[in-house]
Amino acid sequence: MAIKRRKITVVGGGFTGTTTALMTAQKELGDVVLIDIPKMEDPTKGKALDMMEASPVQGFDSKITGTSDYKDTAGSDIVVITAGIPRKPGMSRDDLVSTNAGIMKSVTQEIVKYSPDCYIIVLTNPVDAMTYTVFKESGFPKNRVIGQSGVLDTARFNTFVAEELNVSVEDVTGFVLGGHGDDMVPMLRYSFAGGIPLEKLIDKERLEAIVERTRKGGGEIVNLLGNGSAYYAPAASIVQMVEAILKDKKRILPTIAYLEGEYGYSDLYLGVPTVIGGDGIEQVFELDLNDDEKAALDKSVASVKKVMEIL
Amino acid sequence: MAIKRRKITVVGGGFTGTTTALMTAQKELGDVVLIDIPKMEDPTKGKALDMMEASPVQGFDSKITGTSDYKDTAGSDIVVITAGIPRKPGMSRDDLVSTNAGIMKSVTQEIVKYSPDCYIIVLTNPVDAMTYTVFKESGFPKNRVIGQSGVLDTARFNTFVAEELNVSVEDVTGFVLGGHGDDMVPMLRYSFAGGIPLEKLIDKERLEAIVERTRKGGGEIVNLLGNGSAYYAPAASIVQMVEAILKDKKRILPTIAYLEGEYGYSDLYLGVPTVIGGDGIEQVFELDLNDDEKAALDKSVASVKKVMEIL
Amino acid sequence: MAIKRRKITVVGGGFTGTTTALMTAQKELGDVVLIDIPKMEDPTKGKALDMMEASPVQGFDSKITGTSDYKDTAGSDIVVITAGIPRKPGMSRDDLVSTNAGIMKSVTQEIVKYSPDCYIIVLTNPVDAMTYTVFKESGFPKNRVIGQSGVLDTARFNTFVAEELNVSVEDVTGFVLGGHGDDMVPMLRYSFAGGIPLEKLIDKERLEAIVERTRKGGGEIVNLLGNGSAYYAPAASIVQMVEAILKDKKRILPTIAYLEGEYGYSDLYLGVPTVIGGDGIEQVFELDLNDDEKAALDKSVASVKKVMEIL
Amino acid sequence: MAIKRRKITVVGGGFTGTTTALMTAQKELGDVVLIDIPKMEDPTKGKALDMMEASPVQGFDSKITGTSDYKDTAGSDIVVITAGIPRKPGMSRDDLVSTNAGIMKSVTQEIVKYSPDCYIIVLTNPVDAMTYTVFKESGFPKNRVIGQSGVLDTARFNTFVAEELNVSVEDVTGFVLGGHGDDMVPMLRYSFAGGIPLEKLIDKERLEAIVERTRKGGGEIVNLLGNGSAYYAPAASIVQMVEAILKDKKRILPTIAYLEGEYGYSDLYLGVPTVIGGDGIEQVFELDLNDDEKAALDKSVASVKKVMEIL
Repeated sequence: MAIKRRKITVVGGGFTGTTTALMTAQKELGDVVLIDIPKMEDPTKGKALDMMEASPVQGFDSKITGTSDYKDTAGSDIVVITAGIPRKPGMSRDDLVSTNAGIMKSVTQEIVKYSPDCYIIVLTNPVDAMTYTVFKESGFPKNRVIGQSGVLDTARFNTFVAEELNVSVEDVTGFVLGGHGDDMVPMLRYSFAGGIPLEKLIDKERLEAIVERTRKGGGEIVNLLGNGSAYYAPAASIVQMVEAILKDKKRILPTIAYLEGEYGYSDLYLGVPTVIGGDGIEQVFELDLNDDEKAALDKSVASVKKVMEIL
Repeated sequence: MAIKRRKITVVGGGFTGTTTALMTAQKELGDVVLIDIPKMEDPTKGKALDMMEASPVQGFDSKITGTSDYKDTAGSDIVVITAGIPRKPGMSRDDLVSTNAGIMKSVTQEIVKYSPDCYIIVLTNPVDAMTYTVFKESGFPKNRVIGQSGVLDTARFNTFVAEELNVSVEDVTGFVLGGHGDDMVPMLRYSFAGGIPLEKLIDKERLEAIVERTRKGGGEIVNLLGNGSAYYAPAASIVQMVEAILKDKKRILPTIAYLEGEYGYSDLYLGVPTVIGGDGIEQVFELDLNDDEKAALDKSVASVKKVMEIL
Repeated sequence: MAIKRRKITVVGGGFTGTTTALMTAQKELGDVVLIDIPKMEDPTKGKALDMMEASPVQGFDSKITGTSDYKDTAGSDIVVITAGIPRKPGMSRDDLVSTNAGIMKSVTQEIVKYSPDCYIIVLTNPVDAMTYTVFKESGFPKNRVIGQSGVLDTARFNTFVAEELNVSVEDVTGFVLGGHGDDMVPMLRYSFAGGIPLEKLIDKERLEAIVERTRKGGGEIVNLLGNGSAYYAPAASIVQMVEAILKDKKRILPTIAYLEGEYGYSDLYLGVPTVIGGDGIEQVFELDLNDDEKAALDKSVASVKKVMEIL
Repeated sequence: MAIKRRKITVVGGGFTGTTTALMTAQKELGDVVLIDIPKMEDPTKGKALDMMEASPVQGFDSKITGTSDYKDTAGSDIVVITAGIPRKPGMSRDDLVSTNAGIMKSVTQEIVKYSPDCYIIVLTNPVDAMTYTVFKESGFPKNRVIGQSGVLDTARFNTFVAEELNVSVEDVTGFVLGGHGDDMVPMLRYSFAGGIPLEKLIDKERLEAIVERTRKGGGEIVNLLGNGSAYYAPAASIVQMVEAILKDKKRILPTIAYLEGEYGYSDLYLGVPTVIGGDGIEQVFELDLNDDEKAALDKSVASVKKVMEIL
């Protein structure tokens, strides 16, 4: 009867996982369990402890613990999966699929065993296919298994637009459909700064360059870092979804959702505009697409299906 | 005449530097310039860009830029120095001194050249001696050159106490004097949970264990990580000091301050309770010490002086 | 199974009640129901609507509704009682007792009927006696019925100390026991600025003046306003307690708790240091008192008992 | 050279003024001076003190002081004018004009005298004409005198849309032009939920009802309260503008700006989309209007001019 803190498990103690843990704790969304494989147990505990030691100064009251034992994740409200081998320079996302699908399956079995009522958010690439894998393996209803890519793609797009216009990022609202990265379908008709269509504020050529930069956004970071990939913005994107669920905010966010006929597709996970709240994906918005948009989305779906065939 | 954002430069693009940049931006304290050596320019730009791309989702309006050119730091209000070679497992902090002193000098020359009115916060270890080096090299008045160690030591102590008592970290207020780590002088008389002296809440043996764990707090993380040292709590500690200055909060925080007779010491930097606000260190509190405390502080000072002799 | 927002009911749509609703919503602690008597239904709805219309700009996602029907409060996690006739200039708190006790009883019956599992926080004056009345009427276990006075008294004390020392309020931690206002027992031994005992920072006379000002803190506001009493600080104090429960923070806060032998008193509600978390009052700290403190507390208890005799 | 807190003066100690002071302080945007006429000095001091006493609990470090002496406002960065006689039930906004214009003039003279470099935000109704009055009286450049109405109208519109769709207010972005209330020109083409045009989500009739409710939004609160008008959402709206300036956020917000040819109008203040940042109104966006929108805007301008003729 006593009120308990929410519990969030983050699978994968790499940079994205730890940053997700930090940002979740900073918002006092609940206690966080960071889990990795046994040989990474000590580093995971070290990172968790370091974050805990930041709590008196940052002013948050969330426990963060590191572990390699799924028993410690029992009863989680949300489980975020960041585990998987990373994308390296020059590696296509498709190359990752076999290894990561195997990881998804074993991770999902543990999650389901210890947190049968949780919501799962998947970040591992290639994310559309990995979310599908987790969905099938979990046996969970579709609303409780969600992939992340559109929040991140939109965040990158908004960042570039805000820089171009020299205005606050708070007032830029981009909109994407479809797959992650190269397969992203930008909806410029539905993208605005302060409510003003971007096409009225930025000339066509510059806008195209921004779209292209967004598509290659992950690669841009990979190339700059030289050794590793982005983690701040990906973690922030996940945490926005975690917050939407735990606070039942009913945010309208682009998420990777299971489709059953929407947009003419079935039995696949695809990036679409959704309402995300206390029951996970509560609604999928179906928009009218023009011919170009429909063609781009078809191409995106073909790409997703190609990956799924590998599975 | 127009109102401008504050500008904070963080020297050193390692984990502590980037985490400091992130936490500074999250609080919208101003725009952040993250600077590292030329060969690290691209990774530094990559981390800065990744953080910027988190801003639309985290809801902060601070620009973060990466660079290796000190011209970009011009006119900073605050400069944080995290640069230096890291402490490795088994390495004493004293071993770091010569290399890091050289780095402090060259960094300080650049800072002074481009931001002659700034406040400088030093984190590089051994921090007492490094802060002294920066002070001398800068020619700045003593209030504008400040070292960090006590906020971090206190944060660790408070974390362990909160865990021991199973209470909120918000209500634990530890108190330390003297040097960092092994040289720390815990003031248990002035350490409380909810205003209640810890000595009435925790038995002597457990309390001693907590003090000892705090002393070895940096090493505990180093040992767990296996490869690297703590950065979340150190970064959070710096940001608390940055915030205290930029918002002229007049926080009472333990900082590494230049002493001119306080506690009987002169011409050295030592961890003492201070008021930190819009003019940097605005006041040093001089407490009555009992014999044990005085002896421990003398030992701490001896240790600081020993390092300073290497300089 | 879906995750639901917490629900907080605030009884009394006056300034304290509405400010409590606002501050609860700003922190996104849950949805808020503001309830008042039928003839005040429209103004209550108006205030709730006005606050809701602030939400897009303040950036909070909490619903605030106004009502006069207790059905709308059903299933609340926490109920805050601010209802009662106000304290007017010159009126002793004792004069309020009969009227307000009647209000407490009828309000409690409705609360218990619609939210049998809730936690109740009482603010109505004279608060020690009113909390007792609610406790008895509710039949709830003692941990679930809590009065507020010490958080407010401490907040006032801390404000005056911070002003006196010209330091941040964040670093002042006062400590009070006993009844509200005139009956307050300040524990100067346990009151600090940055961990330093106040007695070392402020001379005896000034400190006594601050204690006296704190005791008369409610009256000072009443006299200045001319028509009405304080509501910002009282509301903020309640919300700190609401947050401590809903986030299971296990804060160490002075609350009005039911005593069963602690400090030598039984069957009464008195201001004492407690741990407040997800199960309400989870612990009462029993401090050693010196003779002066014990005498002051006895006087405070006598005063509380005198009011209780009126009941 | 030391870093100072920003200073914000709020003219008018009524509910809107005090709530503006509170919300400004909560965000630690700077120190706040709340000023009212001499006979209201004590209540103004009382409210300021009550808010200060909330600061230790709410965790903000901003000083709030009450006064009736403009000397205390000297050197303000921003001055917000909420003074004026209130709108009563049944009273047209035009009736307010003469009295309030006189108040604007005398207030402006004091502001200019003591804070010659400040930015002024006007809330007093009829706000378009009152902003014009302050602009003329101040002799300030146009970018430094700004009126508020569009942020509030949009906030109300967004609240109603979020309620209609049962989605987060964070994802609704309405858009208005022109005068306040009855004269508001809603731009439904530029109004979205999660980037999706509202016209695709809400049927025409319901959407019209929401527009109409927004137009009458101030009156709805007046009628419910019975005695007084809205203050939470108006205060929040002002504070968003204050924050945009003090943090140089370059928000795209609808503000009341001085036009010199934009939209075909000159020498009047009108609600238009602007960039608001560290130099006040930094840019006015000129949108293409269709015939209906242009007609509505003309009507709005006619209404504004009619009021200005009274001046």
